[in-house]
Amino acid sequence: MSVEKLSEEERKTWLSALPKWSLARDGDAIERKFEFDDFSEAFGFMARVALIAEKRDHHPEWFNVYNKVEITLTTHDAGGLSLRDVKMARKIDALLG
Amino acid sequence: MSVEKLSEEERKTWLSALPKWSLARDGDAIERKFEFDDFSEAFGFMARVALIAEKRDHHPEWFNVYNKVEITLTTHDAGGLSLRDVKMARKIDALLG
Repeated sequence: MSVEKLSEEERKTWLSALPKWSLARDGDAIERKFEFDDFSEAFGFMARVALIAEKRDHHPEWFNVYNKVEITLTTHDAGGLSLRDVKMARKIDALLG
Repeated sequence: MSVEKLSEEERKTWLSALPKWSLARDGDAIERKFEFDDFSEAFGFMARVALIAEKRDHHPEWFNVYNKVEITLTTHDAGGLSLRDVKMARKIDALLG
């Protein structure tokens, strides 16, 4: 999978397919905030994301407190946003149906 | 278990028994940074902390990226640091032997 940083045009195109994610860090990352019923649901979700991350060898930066989870995706090797982040975001979104 | 905010004196006494944790947020929280070999070890640790948290109904604020985990403990009901945080920190430390 390409680890090249997306161009501004590519970024726009891909992001339009990810309406729940927003650009962060001057366009070098995308982020999404999630809210669940309680910690059990939030951490259950995190466990599923962790399995996806490990399988793809692409790991999120994330924060959790109780029922809230904030995920930031960026590709360190590319120095910004790459297709790996876009695909990971789609996999994460798919967990929530 | 008490959810009263610790006095400054109590805080000092308890914190001296937790040398790997430091005060944060003007003394209203404690935090510790952990570093593991890889994501698998870091998330394995987080899963164990999550089980402790759920059992004690006392949940951390935490951040993870790859092999790094940062945990902040505070007691929202007490508006600061309570004995619940101290005991939770000890349980977390105990996971690492």
